[in-house]
Amino acid sequence: MTKRRIGILTGGGDAPGLNAVIRAVVKRGAGQLGWDIIGSEDSFNGFLMRPQRLFELTPRSCQGLLHRGGTILGTTNRGDPFAWPESDGGARDRSAELAAAIRSAALEGLIVIGGDGTQRIAARLMREHGIKVVGVPKTIDNDLTATDFTFGFWSAVEVATEALDRLHTTAESHDRVMILEVMGRTAGWIALYAGVAGGADCIALPELPYDPERFCEKIRARRARGRQFSLIVVAEGARPKGRERSSGTVKHGRGSIRAGGAGQTLARALAERLDVETRVTVLGHLQRGGGPIPFDRVLATQFGVEATALVERGAWGRMVRVAGGVIGSVAMEQAAVEPRLVDPGHPLIATARAVGIELGA
Amino acid sequence: MTKRRIGILTGGGDAPGLNAVIRAVVKRGAGQLGWDIIGSEDSFNGFLMRPQRLFELTPRSCQGLLHRGGTILGTTNRGDPFAWPESDGGARDRSAELAAAIRSAALEGLIVIGGDGTQRIAARLMREHGIKVVGVPKTIDNDLTATDFTFGFWSAVEVATEALDRLHTTAESHDRVMILEVMGRTAGWIALYAGVAGGADCIALPELPYDPERFCEKIRARRARGRQFSLIVVAEGARPKGRERSSGTVKHGRGSIRAGGAGQTLARALAERLDVETRVTVLGHLQRGGGPIPFDRVLATQFGVEATALVERGAWGRMVRVAGGVIGSVAMEQAAVEPRLVDPGHPLIATARAVGIELGA
Amino acid sequence: MTKRRIGILTGGGDAPGLNAVIRAVVKRGAGQLGWDIIGSEDSFNGFLMRPQRLFELTPRSCQGLLHRGGTILGTTNRGDPFAWPESDGGARDRSAELAAAIRSAALEGLIVIGGDGTQRIAARLMREHGIKVVGVPKTIDNDLTATDFTFGFWSAVEVATEALDRLHTTAESHDRVMILEVMGRTAGWIALYAGVAGGADCIALPELPYDPERFCEKIRARRARGRQFSLIVVAEGARPKGRERSSGTVKHGRGSIRAGGAGQTLARALAERLDVETRVTVLGHLQRGGGPIPFDRVLATQFGVEATALVERGAWGRMVRVAGGVIGSVAMEQAAVEPRLVDPGHPLIATARAVGIELGA
Amino acid sequence: MTKRRIGILTGGGDAPGLNAVIRAVVKRGAGQLGWDIIGSEDSFNGFLMRPQRLFELTPRSCQGLLHRGGTILGTTNRGDPFAWPESDGGARDRSAELAAAIRSAALEGLIVIGGDGTQRIAARLMREHGIKVVGVPKTIDNDLTATDFTFGFWSAVEVATEALDRLHTTAESHDRVMILEVMGRTAGWIALYAGVAGGADCIALPELPYDPERFCEKIRARRARGRQFSLIVVAEGARPKGRERSSGTVKHGRGSIRAGGAGQTLARALAERLDVETRVTVLGHLQRGGGPIPFDRVLATQFGVEATALVERGAWGRMVRVAGGVIGSVAMEQAAVEPRLVDPGHPLIATARAVGIELGA
Repeated sequence: MTKRRIGILTGGGDAPGLNAVIRAVVKRGAGQLGWDIIGSEDSFNGFLMRPQRLFELTPRSCQGLLHRGGTILGTTNRGDPFAWPESDGGARDRSAELAAAIRSAALEGLIVIGGDGTQRIAARLMREHGIKVVGVPKTIDNDLTATDFTFGFWSAVEVATEALDRLHTTAESHDRVMILEVMGRTAGWIALYAGVAGGADCIALPELPYDPERFCEKIRARRARGRQFSLIVVAEGARPKGRERSSGTVKHGRGSIRAGGAGQTLARALAERLDVETRVTVLGHLQRGGGPIPFDRVLATQFGVEATALVERGAWGRMVRVAGGVIGSVAMEQAAVEPRLVDPGHPLIATARAVGIELGA
Repeated sequence: MTKRRIGILTGGGDAPGLNAVIRAVVKRGAGQLGWDIIGSEDSFNGFLMRPQRLFELTPRSCQGLLHRGGTILGTTNRGDPFAWPESDGGARDRSAELAAAIRSAALEGLIVIGGDGTQRIAARLMREHGIKVVGVPKTIDNDLTATDFTFGFWSAVEVATEALDRLHTTAESHDRVMILEVMGRTAGWIALYAGVAGGADCIALPELPYDPERFCEKIRARRARGRQFSLIVVAEGARPKGRERSSGTVKHGRGSIRAGGAGQTLARALAERLDVETRVTVLGHLQRGGGPIPFDRVLATQFGVEATALVERGAWGRMVRVAGGVIGSVAMEQAAVEPRLVDPGHPLIATARAVGIELGA
Repeated sequence: MTKRRIGILTGGGDAPGLNAVIRAVVKRGAGQLGWDIIGSEDSFNGFLMRPQRLFELTPRSCQGLLHRGGTILGTTNRGDPFAWPESDGGARDRSAELAAAIRSAALEGLIVIGGDGTQRIAARLMREHGIKVVGVPKTIDNDLTATDFTFGFWSAVEVATEALDRLHTTAESHDRVMILEVMGRTAGWIALYAGVAGGADCIALPELPYDPERFCEKIRARRARGRQFSLIVVAEGARPKGRERSSGTVKHGRGSIRAGGAGQTLARALAERLDVETRVTVLGHLQRGGGPIPFDRVLATQFGVEATALVERGAWGRMVRVAGGVIGSVAMEQAAVEPRLVDPGHPLIATARAVGIELGA
Repeated sequence: MTKRRIGILTGGGDAPGLNAVIRAVVKRGAGQLGWDIIGSEDSFNGFLMRPQRLFELTPRSCQGLLHRGGTILGTTNRGDPFAWPESDGGARDRSAELAAAIRSAALEGLIVIGGDGTQRIAARLMREHGIKVVGVPKTIDNDLTATDFTFGFWSAVEVATEALDRLHTTAESHDRVMILEVMGRTAGWIALYAGVAGGADCIALPELPYDPERFCEKIRARRARGRQFSLIVVAEGARPKGRERSSGTVKHGRGSIRAGGAGQTLARALAERLDVETRVTVLGHLQRGGGPIPFDRVLATQFGVEATALVERGAWGRMVRVAGGVIGSVAMEQAAVEPRLVDPGHPLIATARAVGIELGA
């Protein structure tokens, strides 16, 4: 019987735990089941741009990976293989070429670790070109309907919460309003969880455009009780009522920079209404960096092992997930739907309000 | 209408998140619903030994509590009110006295945050003396059947995992076997989760008496592959096959010390079979100390808010819990059963084996 | 013999370790020498605005203070007593009033923990009004000529370095230029130390206006070696050659916000020259918050104990310091001179260059 | 002109910062000065046992090393080349063979990073065999007379202090005596610094045999003030007055285990005198593991750069050091003298006492 030969790649923005998934797949697949596990660099690009650099992953090459942030496979996606960006600004369908490259690498199938976009490409590759795939969901924003949690989310919440703890200390000495801008362009889960965990006074979510006056009322009420400082968590996609969401990355000169400034916008809105001194901290990629916390390491390991189990059973076209605490899987076609946003009726919103957090809406 | 007046206490060993529960109860109960929240020091002892020191908890007194470890109410339980230890070595039933003290403090009911033992006393107090109680489960060992998770558990796992990360680094430079002894006298959840999260090579659980030879085999197999070091997590209640579980705290002189030494026992068993140099780290109470991680802060806050909701609805006799990710409650009488132990068939055991961890059994 | 009665206050921005100094003064002064230690809230303001709220500090009130960030005395300075800001926009000399308040509190002298400005006020108060003072230096920027180190500095460096570690991980997966903006409006010590400790590729200091082109060259050179990402630490006061330093806090509406954006300025300058994607993290007050690291706790404790020793010896007018590893003191009048800036000839600049760090100048 | 070719090795127990020294040497030596830097595995053993595995270190091979604990070169010293342990239990002088191996590797000289023992071997190798060496001191115990600080020390103090912080929290809830056993068989610097930084109530140092009764008095005095818990730091080499120091590693079966138990000894001594419940935490190798803190990274980088400067200047036979905050060097022959122990007259001892710490002597 010939050896199984399975490809693996990571796509989209990175999240703490990617390496832990890779490690689990390799330890189980290569170390115990005797498969060849072949890594493609930078998502599908490895097949399209550097097929000669596909490389075998062995248990030895995964030593020390469990607690390392980032991904040894890289995630820099140059483009969607179905609409590959050309130098003339146009786009070309290179999916057939990609499928051919995967076949010529003699791979039986792929384990695709990635976000929404990456999973959609993988599902289409299977549907249109017959490439067998198994998916492992990844989004630091935890905004997938198909799974209760994704690895990396709690690690990001921990970074944001530690920042709140620090700001808390210094705010107390200074009588200031401290604003912490966290990740979340469309989904505010990190802001919500970190806000509850870090004892924020106000939280601004992308899903609930805020009325600055309500935050001012909260600050005034605290002052009336002798609390001269306040802490506000604002998701990068949060905005005042009636305002458009600001765009994210924008072209500037020959490169690109990050626009936005949800924290600064809020700082200005407060200063216009209230005699406050504000300070803004922008965490940015700090939330993606660093090693995964144990919760995410365990989840990532479970996901990696489950992915190999799906391959073992030939359950192609399925994506790993956790639901109600149980590791399982769901059809990929079903998985890629609308993102899971913070619903105003979510129980944690009620909990936040029950401990006095103002949501501005 | 008269103001509601509710007592609150914490019992048993401490766990990161106790203060976060208290804070949530007070923020919601006193801050929003206008109740008086009255704290009893050191579990039920406050009523029996220092009723004059019962004190009101206000949102102000809960400032800065969210991230603080320990409990401002204290947990030092001098004894079971139903079998109070007397100086002559006997025991006396002081439960009627306790019930009278609670009534004379004009309390409508109690929110009892505590472990198995504390909850059992609370349930009996309700059954036999008509004292209304609502329970909030607490066990750092996460060994309750009634709830998927208890706050403090993941905080303890994080301490143990960080220790493994550190030992990993130094073990690699030294060609040694590093043994980490973690909490868990009867339930090995901390050892299991930390072992998976920290990339241990072997895990010894109280539930699975180990064969030292199997650990030696693992160490030899690693050496054969050029890995000169190994990491072993051992729960304090783990033991070799055929040996009795060692007792915990023992009297010594006028005080008491902790016996045991599961780590040293394992170190000796390995040294008798293999040419290894071992080092043992005993985490002890490090795992209980320090602030709760965000996961536990959120869970503790949810538990505290849910406890006030139970009181609001008059759902006395129920204990808060989380099941399948949903916060809810269960009848206290139902909750206090056998501890939830690590079952050899638990999915995480399979996951551990899939990434090559030896469990010694 | 009458009891000694000594006042204590903290002024200026906060720094991790302030509470540790207070604790040491109280433990030694009140706990062992039997003095009354009287705290004034918010620097000298306590005497001028809330003299009725002066309060005694006892060892009990200092429990748990050692590792707590911020200051229990508050630092919000409403104004210089020698030029107190009036509501009509003018200024009034209230120093005589302050001296009277100190005398009427029956204080023999003051221990003044604070930065440059606070020390200068204290020295003048002694010179012009005969108020006895002992100084303890405080600046998170470590920019005092009189002392080798101030507490809080290494804590801030640790926050910034941990941020670099996190950014490093994620930058590696993403092929990006990560910019970390740290504190330092005029002195770049935090940027320099954190840059060396965190393995930055480039550091932009306030003292050395940078040529963006040199940073671009460094980024290009790294790319040429296959390193697709770069890490840049930029002090908030850093600026490109030929540009004015941007102002700090500015009035906006009824309050004030923080202007500046040294990180964004640099991001734009790079994007105009190079095809790069940049991300900016702004640490802001994260660097002041949180507890002090052990180095700063030890130093703060030594400073506090030394301050009481100066009082004991009647060595008024002196400021505690550390020089060449030895705790001692210096005349306050001598201490308040020009800030210690990063000299291009400082040995650590040479070290930074020796490990390949580009300083842009 | 021929390229310089310099060897590098690390010896003795590991310490956080070893990799940072290696990285600095390689970045400066290979990256900027164009030298070949050749690594020997496991101290001098690489030359004697695996000369074919000597390998070139390039800036690329040092990527990500700065914050990584341990050493990529390994430190497992099988024996002193001047008295190499033979299988028959005897010893043989293999130093000439070693010198030959170094010469046959065409090395101009060696940068030797290591402790006392390693430096002594290096100095002797130079004296007796003319091998040119430059030394970089390494001892986590900070017990060298020749240098004010060694890298790794403050990292170890940080681990121990964080442990104290955690124990503090839980001790407070439990009315217990918590004992923390830290490294230090002959020198108690870690215990002393961590004890001061972590607010210990008592510290037991190897240099000052303790009277258990004095610790009991301290505990009683605290209880009398309502403080029911106490925290004690004990160095592994500390012992009660009149007792012999226990030995360290001992042979057991075919391997070896760590004897000692200074923490347990103290726990028993207290329990015999006082009605206390004690808990012992043994940090062990946790203190060596993990990445270096920024202080140690900067110091290690400075040491590495200075070592290359010594080589550049041909200043063979000298060891890098820091004195009074200034990086410099000292003759190796001078460096290897008696270890620097905690002197009862050391200023930090006085500071410790001034904040109420009992030293038991």
